[in-house]
Amino acid sequence: MRAGIELGGTKTVVAIGNERGDVLEEIRYPTSDPATTLNRACEWIAARGDPKSIGIAAFGPIVLQKNHEQYGRLLATPKKNWQGASICEPISRTFPKAKLALDTDVNAAALAEARVGAGAGVDDLVYITIGTGIGAGILTEGRLLHGTLHAEFGHLKVPREPNDAFAGICPFHGDCLEGMASGPAIAARWNESADRLPATHPAWELQAWYLAHGVLSLVAIVAPACVVIGGGVAQVEGLHQKIQTQLCRLSAGYFPLVEDKNFIRAPMLGQQAGIIGALILCDL
Amino acid sequence: MRAGIELGGTKTVVAIGNERGDVLEEIRYPTSDPATTLNRACEWIAARGDPKSIGIAAFGPIVLQKNHEQYGRLLATPKKNWQGASICEPISRTFPKAKLALDTDVNAAALAEARVGAGAGVDDLVYITIGTGIGAGILTEGRLLHGTLHAEFGHLKVPREPNDAFAGICPFHGDCLEGMASGPAIAARWNESADRLPATHPAWELQAWYLAHGVLSLVAIVAPACVVIGGGVAQVEGLHQKIQTQLCRLSAGYFPLVEDKNFIRAPMLGQQAGIIGALILCDL
Repeated sequence: MRAGIELGGTKTVVAIGNERGDVLEEIRYPTSDPATTLNRACEWIAARGDPKSIGIAAFGPIVLQKNHEQYGRLLATPKKNWQGASICEPISRTFPKAKLALDTDVNAAALAEARVGAGAGVDDLVYITIGTGIGAGILTEGRLLHGTLHAEFGHLKVPREPNDAFAGICPFHGDCLEGMASGPAIAARWNESADRLPATHPAWELQAWYLAHGVLSLVAIVAPACVVIGGGVAQVEGLHQKIQTQLCRLSAGYFPLVEDKNFIRAPMLGQQAGIIGALILCDL
Repeated sequence: MRAGIELGGTKTVVAIGNERGDVLEEIRYPTSDPATTLNRACEWIAARGDPKSIGIAAFGPIVLQKNHEQYGRLLATPKKNWQGASICEPISRTFPKAKLALDTDVNAAALAEARVGAGAGVDDLVYITIGTGIGAGILTEGRLLHGTLHAEFGHLKVPREPNDAFAGICPFHGDCLEGMASGPAIAARWNESADRLPATHPAWELQAWYLAHGVLSLVAIVAPACVVIGGGVAQVEGLHQKIQTQLCRLSAGYFPLVEDKNFIRAPMLGQQAGIIGALILCDL
């Protein structure tokens, strides 16, 4: 038996499943303080058996360098009570024999889409999520990328569309990618929530401009075989195709990879990507 | 005994050395056709003993995915005779018992600077070289990054400095990073070779603008502990400090890492980085 925990900013999902990432049984509840939230996960798992492994897909920022003394702890987060909290400690105390694996929620989603989702069989995949913020999970040569922290992809700077006068809404950077293309940025720019803008609205061509530039940076730095773009703001019809078209224009023949018409993909696992990734995290 | 080969577009360096990357003896000669160039390396090494390992730092693009049928072969290159050539084959034929390791010249330089150079002891380091082109080698959690090919960092798009009207010189992209900030780009912009522009010339503040944006993309995607910037165009006094200052302004407090005053560093190994990296490549 293996277990997975998806620890989100607002809700937590706990599941037991198998090595293919199939969820056999799951529970969802609101994320509260660290002790209450993690103890409830442990009790639920323990009532179902003795897991050989537990994978945890968590919100961040978390310290993921294995030799770091703060490994598994949350850094500065606006979420009350969680700053400095250890995610692994209460779990390894309850299940001292289980193999523990921890990663970010977007890295877990990238792994899930690469193993059993939109990029099944691919070892170099980037998963981008666009919602309240913009994040990326990166699988490269079969390993999840962290560096000294983990990708903060949303805050890279991309060129402005030449006729675009919107200042951007990032409190740090104004017009970084997240400041120009996250859900709240779209809402501020058009005075309308993204999910109410029709697929024919000019918002989406502009959205594709910014995302194509962000994807180009990923292509130039980590050279993925495909890029999966999910999240609430990526669900409008035709957006993936628009991004692909703009990306090919930007590449101008230099990156042959991006000309594969399946280079930019919609996710296949939807909201289950995180918990599926958690179930298979321990296999890396 | 271990051997290293740095296969450059114009010259080849072959060395024997030790596990610290010390070069004990070396030979340099012009790179000609594949058979002549690689056989000469093999003969020189064989005359000095039987190497346990041979590391090769090569110009690219080369296929580096170990399970790829074209592994170790050069892809499209303007260099006559080299397109499709296998770099590993003639060497493994001569030394069937030696452990072979192959990577790009910039990745080898990144490894060398991270082990015995400007970032000694660091496991997350990016090495950028600025000369005729702009390239990057990336070490992340102690491993060299490839993805499906390897970083083509020079061709990412960065925002233009608002008052800059220069069109850029990249034949593919015009104003990509390489098109705006490589040695030939500087020469075209100022009608003067980069090495003749004094440290006080406005060229360098503009250069720092473009490089700081390129580095920010790396920070947002691979989160290195430090960035080493070398190559002929990075040797002017004060450039590293200018890049660091602009990078901190761009980060605006979001990426605490870049505020370390040693985040942007000059290389320590100079032109020896590639061959030193070749000597220690097999330890990864």
